[in-house]
Amino acid sequence: MNKFVSRRELLSLIGKTGATAAVLKASTALGLVPETNVQFPDIPSVNPANRPAVVILGGGISGLTTAYELDKAGYDCVVLEAAPKAGGRCMTVRSGDLIDEVGNPQICEFDDEPHMYFNAGPARIPSTHRNLLRYCRELGVELEIFVNENKEAYVQDDAMFNGKPIKNAAVTTSARGFMAEIMAKNFTGHELDQPLNQYEAESLLSAIRSFGDLSEGDVFKGSTRSGYAHGGFIEHGVQKDVADFSELLKTDFMRMILGQNEGETGPVLFQPVGGMDKIVQGFTNKLEGKIYYDVMVASVNLNNGDGVEVTYEHKGMKYKIQADYCFNCIPSHLMTGIENNFDDNYIEAMRYVRRGEAYKSAFQAKTRFWEKDDIYGGISWTNQKIQQIWYPPHGVFKDKGVILGAYDYGGGMHFTKLSQEERLETAIRQGQKVHPEYRDQVEKGITIAWHRMNHMLGCAARWARNRDGMTADEERLYRTLQQPAGGRHYMIGDQISVHSAWQESAILSAHWAINDMVKRQSGISTMPGQKLS
Amino acid sequence: MNKFVSRRELLSLIGKTGATAAVLKASTALGLVPETNVQFPDIPSVNPANRPAVVILGGGISGLTTAYELDKAGYDCVVLEAAPKAGGRCMTVRSGDLIDEVGNPQICEFDDEPHMYFNAGPARIPSTHRNLLRYCRELGVELEIFVNENKEAYVQDDAMFNGKPIKNAAVTTSARGFMAEIMAKNFTGHELDQPLNQYEAESLLSAIRSFGDLSEGDVFKGSTRSGYAHGGFIEHGVQKDVADFSELLKTDFMRMILGQNEGETGPVLFQPVGGMDKIVQGFTNKLEGKIYYDVMVASVNLNNGDGVEVTYEHKGMKYKIQADYCFNCIPSHLMTGIENNFDDNYIEAMRYVRRGEAYKSAFQAKTRFWEKDDIYGGISWTNQKIQQIWYPPHGVFKDKGVILGAYDYGGGMHFTKLSQEERLETAIRQGQKVHPEYRDQVEKGITIAWHRMNHMLGCAARWARNRDGMTADEERLYRTLQQPAGGRHYMIGDQISVHSAWQESAILSAHWAINDMVKRQSGISTMPGQKLS
Repeated sequence: MNKFVSRRELLSLIGKTGATAAVLKASTALGLVPETNVQFPDIPSVNPANRPAVVILGGGISGLTTAYELDKAGYDCVVLEAAPKAGGRCMTVRSGDLIDEVGNPQICEFDDEPHMYFNAGPARIPSTHRNLLRYCRELGVELEIFVNENKEAYVQDDAMFNGKPIKNAAVTTSARGFMAEIMAKNFTGHELDQPLNQYEAESLLSAIRSFGDLSEGDVFKGSTRSGYAHGGFIEHGVQKDVADFSELLKTDFMRMILGQNEGETGPVLFQPVGGMDKIVQGFTNKLEGKIYYDVMVASVNLNNGDGVEVTYEHKGMKYKIQADYCFNCIPSHLMTGIENNFDDNYIEAMRYVRRGEAYKSAFQAKTRFWEKDDIYGGISWTNQKIQQIWYPPHGVFKDKGVILGAYDYGGGMHFTKLSQEERLETAIRQGQKVHPEYRDQVEKGITIAWHRMNHMLGCAARWARNRDGMTADEERLYRTLQQPAGGRHYMIGDQISVHSAWQESAILSAHWAINDMVKRQSGISTMPGQKLS
Repeated sequence: MNKFVSRRELLSLIGKTGATAAVLKASTALGLVPETNVQFPDIPSVNPANRPAVVILGGGISGLTTAYELDKAGYDCVVLEAAPKAGGRCMTVRSGDLIDEVGNPQICEFDDEPHMYFNAGPARIPSTHRNLLRYCRELGVELEIFVNENKEAYVQDDAMFNGKPIKNAAVTTSARGFMAEIMAKNFTGHELDQPLNQYEAESLLSAIRSFGDLSEGDVFKGSTRSGYAHGGFIEHGVQKDVADFSELLKTDFMRMILGQNEGETGPVLFQPVGGMDKIVQGFTNKLEGKIYYDVMVASVNLNNGDGVEVTYEHKGMKYKIQADYCFNCIPSHLMTGIENNFDDNYIEAMRYVRRGEAYKSAFQAKTRFWEKDDIYGGISWTNQKIQQIWYPPHGVFKDKGVILGAYDYGGGMHFTKLSQEERLETAIRQGQKVHPEYRDQVEKGITIAWHRMNHMLGCAARWARNRDGMTADEERLYRTLQQPAGGRHYMIGDQISVHSAWQESAILSAHWAINDMVKRQSGISTMPGQKLS
């Protein structure tokens, strides 16, 4: 009698959506697909004889966007950047580059070749991120297609098939088959709010059958969709064995795999040819002489509604700038440690924003061993701490390549507690479970813990402490930080967005702030409702 | 009481798998993923003083593969090609190219730019087609990722939402949501052959919820996966309305969309940079002086097991070649019209193979209007005769592009009955239902009906007349045509494969024939079973 889970038990499981929903929402990296409703800035040109002075703190994507747009409109812009290069988290690592992790600085030793790079921060551009794509076009950044899901890549879970890696196609095809069988056998139409007519019912069943590739009688007997065991071209194809469904249920990846191809990774994805920081270069090429590097901001003070005074240090010297406007993408938790005269609410908001953690590592591969396995780009998933292995979609057929060997964006940050040697050794040992030849193939590993990177000490901003969204109090703080302090100081960056960790958000934060400045200049009210007096 | 389709009625529908299965199997273009079990040829080098003479009839992919491999091994190869260029159905159309349709020749008037081409035959290389990829690598053919499914492209069906095109993402997300709701509400575990333990049941429910992005209580209330109505970056995102499920059931595309990402279009896909015929050029570069064009084969006769005699015409002159071996990729239905002395079984087999029909058209677009709609590559689907619109994955951000405006591979060949003007006008009129601006945007249309193309008069070979596979008699004929006539004449091409319409099959047919020749030369039996005497 206890052969099956009872209906009551199942209903009880069905009620437990909390845990599942939490998991589903946990990943910013596999997030949602917001649509823009921030207007692209239309900035009135300024009088060349009387150019407003703008100081931009931080040369990340939001700072660069602000500088680029205001410079075009004739503003007198200066960007102060703490690091020796611009881009912030939009960072591509190549031969000779410094990874400036506090306490664990590394120099990248990859071969010096154009395709041998690692996008340590953002690595994907969804085709729905219109503003970022507009800048790529405008700045001449050449794009190529990025591969996210690859059915030929692996899924490996110690609990499933005794830990043997299996092809994503086998998981997906079997899961779809069994799910379709459940649907086709149980579907009566009663579960829908609306009745179905004969045609609609037939259409649904037809879709269900196609979804799962069901055999005669609506059972799943395996599918050639995941390939033949042998034959198929000259000889007749012999179908592969059906992946055991109960094995698939041993892994959480059923959920992962079936949730794929939706959300931000659903649209076509791009990467810039040669590295994500080609976007940064596109901006900096247009801002020659206007960006100052290795600059430590010492104070940011409002001048009674009449501009902002910034002091900073550079090579042991102190400097002061008076500006009409300040746009500030310094992470707010670092900004609170810099002298300022902001009011308490503003500082409370800055302090409230938490920072996500994110860890990535990468290796140079001596040969493109994954290509021998029909893998070109995409992701293998594993239940181990490394979580993912990414294969480069570019440089196909070349001798070597750079692969992502670990990507931890919320799994307890196991790696950051380890020494550099242990980080790499762990990644190699775990990678071997997916690719037995891994240890012999990978070398010159690098690691990046964004929450320990100098000048950042944090990854994506996080506003809501509860997964259900912002509380009223959080909403108040969020709106406080979006408003210009003293009408002249704007916080920018993904820290004033509800969709952090994407470059599009950084760009839109800049657009939002610029639009607000333009409105204030024109005397257009920025208050909700109609202006009465 | 008649609000719902009754369970009996549904069971009756479920039983009607015939029609559905037929549709599912109908498309060669969305076919299966066979795995190779033909060995890559290992050809013993021949004595340079005594090079066997090989004549290859037809310079399609199978003929070129044969010539390339045998030439490398020292054979004295000659390729006779009927057309003025090699490649067969591997054809890329550019400015000035002739489309040699019988009765409807056209010269392509696209702008003369590297990205302004149309792959009129094969246009996708699955990453599982190892042999083709091996040649791309060996021949220096640069590859780039091809986009097949694009969630930002459209689905348009006159029956659905009053014919309004809707984004693929909206269809997919809603369909997944409703399917998941059906599963979650009905699943009891009893439909499975094996019992589930608590963990497995939880795992399955979790996967179902993730698949459909179900809300609390396991109902589908829409999902931000298909984007927000507005907001989502700086402002909170407001979810789009749920696509009405009963509208989705009005279209056959539910089946199409949900069956996507499996089979031959499931793996990562490639296209050669600059056009599919870069593969042809890769081969012909290696065969300089060995391919003769505009050659009409007049006779193919076996010399009593001692080779093959071929006569042909070129520019009004007749010629004769004596060869030790002949490899022949002339379409078998055309070959039966050429003088020969093959035995009756061989000729019966040649006559038996039918030829598929396929029609494509393409337009030059004055602007890349689809990119304004977040579409970069991929396919829009419509229930109209044009069936599909393909957007180029290359040339992103350039001024113009070439789009596929119709792809009919089994819909009754509506277009081929029409004049060239009517073909293009119909495609424009139908394209307007997907893109209202279509008529203003497209120009310089071309059309290609493969079953009417000179020297081909047919598309992919088709062996089985019944969708259940080959009959015993068909199997006999299939094996007959795979054997060398007189031990010296090999038919090659996808016409001796069970997976026609893919270049991989053409390549493997060549490998199969070469391997057979090598075995016979070494005295290795090619008969099944063990050789006794």
